Amino acid sequence: MSVHFRKLALIGIGLIGSSIALAARRQGLVEVISIATRKQDTLDEARELGLGDIYTLDAAEAVRGADLVVICTPVGAYEGVMQAIAPALEPGAILSDVGSVKGHVVKTLAPLIPDGVSFIPGHPLAGTEHSGPSAGFAELFAGRWCVLTPGPEVDPIKTEKLAGFWRAMGSQVESMDAAHHDMVLAITSHIPHLVAYNIVGTVADLEAATQSEVIKFSASGFRDFTRIAASDPVMWRDVFLTNRDAVLEMLGRFSEDLSILQRAVRTGDGPALEAMFTRTRAIRRSIISAGQETAAPDFGRQHEAPPAPETPFVREHGGGDDA
Amino acid sequence: MSVHFRKLALIGIGLIGSSIALAARRQGLVEVISIATRKQDTLDEARELGLGDIYTLDAAEAVRGADLVVICTPVGAYEGVMQAIAPALEPGAILSDVGSVKGHVVKTLAPLIPDGVSFIPGHPLAGTEHSGPSAGFAELFAGRWCVLTPGPEVDPIKTEKLAGFWRAMGSQVESMDAAHHDMVLAITSHIPHLVAYNIVGTVADLEAATQSEVIKFSASGFRDFTRIAASDPVMWRDVFLTNRDAVLEMLGRFSEDLSILQRAVRTGDGPALEAMFTRTRAIRRSIISAGQETAAPDFGRQHEAPPAPETPFVREHGGGDDA
Repeated sequence: MSVHFRKLALIGIGLIGSSIALAARRQGLVEVISIATRKQDTLDEARELGLGDIYTLDAAEAVRGADLVVICTPVGAYEGVMQAIAPALEPGAILSDVGSVKGHVVKTLAPLIPDGVSFIPGHPLAGTEHSGPSAGFAELFAGRWCVLTPGPEVDPIKTEKLAGFWRAMGSQVESMDAAHHDMVLAITSHIPHLVAYNIVGTVADLEAATQSEVIKFSASGFRDFTRIAASDPVMWRDVFLTNRDAVLEMLGRFSEDLSILQRAVRTGDGPALEAMFTRTRAIRRSIISAGQETAAPDFGRQHEAPPAPETPFVREHGGGDDA
Repeated sequence: MSVHFRKLALIGIGLIGSSIALAARRQGLVEVISIATRKQDTLDEARELGLGDIYTLDAAEAVRGADLVVICTPVGAYEGVMQAIAPALEPGAILSDVGSVKGHVVKTLAPLIPDGVSFIPGHPLAGTEHSGPSAGFAELFAGRWCVLTPGPEVDPIKTEKLAGFWRAMGSQVESMDAAHHDMVLAITSHIPHLVAYNIVGTVADLEAATQSEVIKFSASGFRDFTRIAASDPVMWRDVFLTNRDAVLEMLGRFSEDLSILQRAVRTGDGPALEAMFTRTRAIRRSIISAGQETAAPDFGRQHEAPPAPETPFVREHGGGDDA
């Protein structure tokens, strides 16, 4: 236990914000936690939960004197937050966030960053299906990746300081270029979610009789897609609005490949189907040997925790708090 | 415990065949179990595991005197099996199977069924990622659906007799038209698998550097697709070769819907995206209220078992035994 920052300001106190508050407090990483949110109800809830030391509806007040500021609102609210807090940010402070897209965040916020403030965007790959201040828990980040995307102008000492904070909360930290982050997340997270939403939507259009049987027999594969497609609509809307280019690029590749598979089904090309279904196994093996998954059979859904580092299925966080 | 059939013949002794043997024996549902398989190695393995009473490479010999015959080979092998066993089938016997598609099975086998034999195709919606005689376990069918697709010519008493056998092994049984089964399974199981194979295939084509990061960050959603796409390539090839029409019909709807989503992403149509991401939640709620899933949050992958009936994620069985 050692103090990493004197005052932590959290703008937005949804699932991720509240989990940061709980983890930072439990590990003794900060002396003071100030919490700002837009809605009185949410602020009251955070106070009742004892998540911080200072509670305010005024984001500028929250960040005053803070050496670490983390924006935990939906990405769509960032610009307004930034305009409010920019004049109050302390020189020497680190400003970060937890949004699921990074290129758009850099483009939006970079011009508004005051001199002397180190802007280091972040994305903890962690979450559950729930949102709000009461959804947070201190272990949320344990064994999960946190990606930082500092620009070239950022002092590496500052980046390391922020990385140390995340590691102290249990994360593994990786730094990369914002555009690269967005491309990797497009295929690992955004396209899987889009496809899951899409297939569930296709079912929503089926005639009622078939639909009820789809629901009855959902355990044969479809059910896992509905779980993914139960994620927060507003958060995911913002993801697709703000990571458009990478999503369209990956979606284009996906659709091309699907056309090839479709043609193989239509023409009854068994060898092509078998070849395509075989080559995907190498990817699966890589994930298992990278320690990201266990090879144990999937009898029902009671999975063994994968070997260290523990990296359970990540549900993208549910939009955080609409600060 | 009561004897449902005197002699059960299993043609093919992979995951499903061996699980039927173990469940039927444990529940005392049959007096004699005869096992036929094409390969000596597999037969020896079945014998070492003590799965039955009679072991033979000759399918006709296995079915002689049996009042229940269940074909547990891949669908592609059915026609050959049927030609071998038809002359030896006992009048009054029930002939069933466990294949993932049913219309094709009816079309292929119905003309070959001898008079006096009741042909009742079946599909237990159960499985794991593993295959072979040693992969079976007596609890595989507990709480899972088994769909039967008897033709109109079948005596309902026979269908009820087979249904009782499956219920005694723990299944819930539903009867429906073969074509309807294939349409429902196309959307609940076949399209999800095709899409999972496809997205993993798209990743397999990425440049090496990106691919290694996709593997590293796979827990953000992609990993679950690789699990689905790790299923047996030969079995799935046969599914898509034999359920072509239903798969193409559902794939057509899926692709249309995906085009609409893609356009909404491209044009930045936030309200349309949010609306599409919201309507899918109703389907999820239906699945939860149908008892097919728990609403508990998905912290990592240690899911609580859903409320009774227990219906864990079904991995389609891995091709069974290549008898």
